[in-house]
Amino acid sequence: MGARKQLKLGAMLQGISGNVGAWRHPEVPANASVSLKFYQQQALAAERSKFDFVFIADGLYITEQSIPHFLSRFEPITILSVLAGVTTRIGLVGTLSTTYSEPFTVARQFGSLDLISDGRAGWNVVTSPLAGSEKNHNNRKHPSHPERYAIAEEHLSVVRGLWDSWEEDAFVRDKESGVFFDPSKLHRLNHEGTYFKVEGPLNIERSKQGQPVVFQAGSSESGKDLAARSADAVFTAHGSIEEAKAFYKDVKERAVTYGRVPDDIVIAPGISPIIGRTAEEAEAKYQEVASLASIEQAIEHLGRFFEHHDFSQYPLDEPFPDLGELGKDSFQSTTNLIKRRAKEGGLTLRQLALELATPRTPFIGTAVQVADTIEQWHREEAADGFVIRGMLPSFFDEFIEQVVPLLQERGIFRTEYESDTFRGNLGLAIPENRYAVERV
Amino acid sequence: MGARKQLKLGAMLQGISGNVGAWRHPEVPANASVSLKFYQQQALAAERSKFDFVFIADGLYITEQSIPHFLSRFEPITILSVLAGVTTRIGLVGTLSTTYSEPFTVARQFGSLDLISDGRAGWNVVTSPLAGSEKNHNNRKHPSHPERYAIAEEHLSVVRGLWDSWEEDAFVRDKESGVFFDPSKLHRLNHEGTYFKVEGPLNIERSKQGQPVVFQAGSSESGKDLAARSADAVFTAHGSIEEAKAFYKDVKERAVTYGRVPDDIVIAPGISPIIGRTAEEAEAKYQEVASLASIEQAIEHLGRFFEHHDFSQYPLDEPFPDLGELGKDSFQSTTNLIKRRAKEGGLTLRQLALELATPRTPFIGTAVQVADTIEQWHREEAADGFVIRGMLPSFFDEFIEQVVPLLQERGIFRTEYESDTFRGNLGLAIPENRYAVERV
Repeated sequence: MGARKQLKLGAMLQGISGNVGAWRHPEVPANASVSLKFYQQQALAAERSKFDFVFIADGLYITEQSIPHFLSRFEPITILSVLAGVTTRIGLVGTLSTTYSEPFTVARQFGSLDLISDGRAGWNVVTSPLAGSEKNHNNRKHPSHPERYAIAEEHLSVVRGLWDSWEEDAFVRDKESGVFFDPSKLHRLNHEGTYFKVEGPLNIERSKQGQPVVFQAGSSESGKDLAARSADAVFTAHGSIEEAKAFYKDVKERAVTYGRVPDDIVIAPGISPIIGRTAEEAEAKYQEVASLASIEQAIEHLGRFFEHHDFSQYPLDEPFPDLGELGKDSFQSTTNLIKRRAKEGGLTLRQLALELATPRTPFIGTAVQVADTIEQWHREEAADGFVIRGMLPSFFDEFIEQVVPLLQERGIFRTEYESDTFRGNLGLAIPENRYAVERV
Repeated sequence: MGARKQLKLGAMLQGISGNVGAWRHPEVPANASVSLKFYQQQALAAERSKFDFVFIADGLYITEQSIPHFLSRFEPITILSVLAGVTTRIGLVGTLSTTYSEPFTVARQFGSLDLISDGRAGWNVVTSPLAGSEKNHNNRKHPSHPERYAIAEEHLSVVRGLWDSWEEDAFVRDKESGVFFDPSKLHRLNHEGTYFKVEGPLNIERSKQGQPVVFQAGSSESGKDLAARSADAVFTAHGSIEEAKAFYKDVKERAVTYGRVPDDIVIAPGISPIIGRTAEEAEAKYQEVASLASIEQAIEHLGRFFEHHDFSQYPLDEPFPDLGELGKDSFQSTTNLIKRRAKEGGLTLRQLALELATPRTPFIGTAVQVADTIEQWHREEAADGFVIRGMLPSFFDEFIEQVVPLLQERGIFRTEYESDTFRGNLGLAIPENRYAVERV
């Protein structure tokens, strides 16, 4: 059994915020997005179930129409740092934008989180697809989609370079001789590129996992390229196994063309499992959550992906409007998917808006059915793992109580952590310091 | 007794790093600056002694000549967030530069820390006096001293404006009606200034202390002005009570000219108390720590304050060299002080370098002597409180074990926290939301 390739699992915290109406459900703390207790409970539950990581999403612009739990929520670096203190084994992944941050700051904050957690930090690289983010950041024009990715590529390379400022054994700290560090193991990056100029060195040493794990969360062509070239893991989303397999194959093949091996990159779609005693009961649970979002809210929420476009101007029950190029500079892979679904499925505006308001994934059914689907996706190379978004806290609890044990019985999910680092649990190698490599 | 004006106390964490050689002392963990356990122990000890706050200093540029513990240390936001999870009452203050950060990011991270800690966050505003910081931050020229302060003034006003995005009772969160917030209590800043353009609103609500406490740490003319106009507290440093009294009077008077009352601002010099059973024993302890720094290290350390000037070119035992304007754009108040001391005291380069390498404050003696000096500074309006920098962990322990009880007996320091917020303990009012004020 132990020889079977292991599944990786992450838990999206504030998972209840991924759909518009869930906050109104009786079991959801109305202030969940700013409840330390709620985050701590979810993280500890995930750790007890041997999840690889928790995942904190983020955004940099809100309007009156935002998802309620997005209006006031903890900032990722701060909440992950608190969670580092209350957990001991689980990975801690947070979103931070390359478009509106300084590489030196990002390298320090994730480097510090990595040391504080003793090798458990992960950075989810995003380019801030949300239009409006620029309005909170100093006159800057929101860059076009291709430029955002060019910035991201360079930003990430600077951060990684800074993380190599100190070789593993650079700090001698010998009180007797007074030698604190070995100067030959201290390196300045001296980066001068198109968007950034950063000398270094970074003022924090490496953790025992070498560098924080790098996630990438965009699924456009540029997103896939960035992931294949530079990321350790990909957070994505798919409506069907066919779509997921195509994406998986594409990213792994691109990784190979960049000189990597397929196992260098962990592909983990986000899914929202819903478990019932019967398939019908599970479906009814989905419908109950979906009914909490009004069509007005769903229409407003849809606009967020299309640069805050006003969809209330179109008739609800006619085919989805032709939007031309709109959306290509924001959430490109999502807006392309919506347009494609509208075209292929002949769906109306109402249908698509409601679908997006309460995202539906093919993981709704009995515990055995959901475990089967997960096993199938894993076996057929649609996913190396999954990020679990519990639409309600009880949906998450039911997943860990009923589905995780099945996955463990089938020998595809751990019953104990294999490694004492996040990288180790993901099956990724500890990256050697680039300068140490050069010297060999 | 209770009617006497209360003293405020803070604890500088990584306090051992304020002098060049202390890391070599047998009792100092050589990796103290990256030891979570060390930070936690110090913070918990300070909380047990009812300190108002812990304080994390910072810097954005290192060289081979930096103080050893500065070469690799935790970043303030991350370590304060961890400490928020292990403490319950003590304030959490961290340094963050206005010269190399985005106001939106700063407002979010401290706002999030403030909510996570339930009203205990503090931001120490600095302008990055350290030359070289610009080299890690994208081509930007290190701004001149006056420009850094103009940026700081605007940056702080933007952050404070963002902290008022949501009025206290803006979040209704009524599941029945589906009303999550009251739109009339959501405000956009729409700031357009010289250096920043930020629309808002911030995506995090107010904590129960209204806004994080704002510290200011520059003691130049511009620094004093910024503090007097905008800060809740001032972190400073003085060699004598006369100097401290003049500074205190100056800042409080400036505050009054800006329409504030003197008690609106807490002045807290950093001090390094050393306790002995006799005055001679205390002095011997100082000398023991001082002896750990070599003259070469002291000379290198001195350069850091003067834009990394090379002092090894001057004879050690002749009068301190005439440096002209050098140092005015870096740590201006410190470099002015050094130049003044050199002139008034006729000190040599060696004497001044060693003094700076192991800073000496007039708080060395028996517990009673140190308590007397503290009481005198407090009574004679040289300080509202102090930030305690233990040069060695045992120096800090001895302070809280021997001096704090004396201050409590004398009725000038609390035996229990008075308030459940950091502001409340400092005796500061909860700032009303600016828009709520307008409406009244």
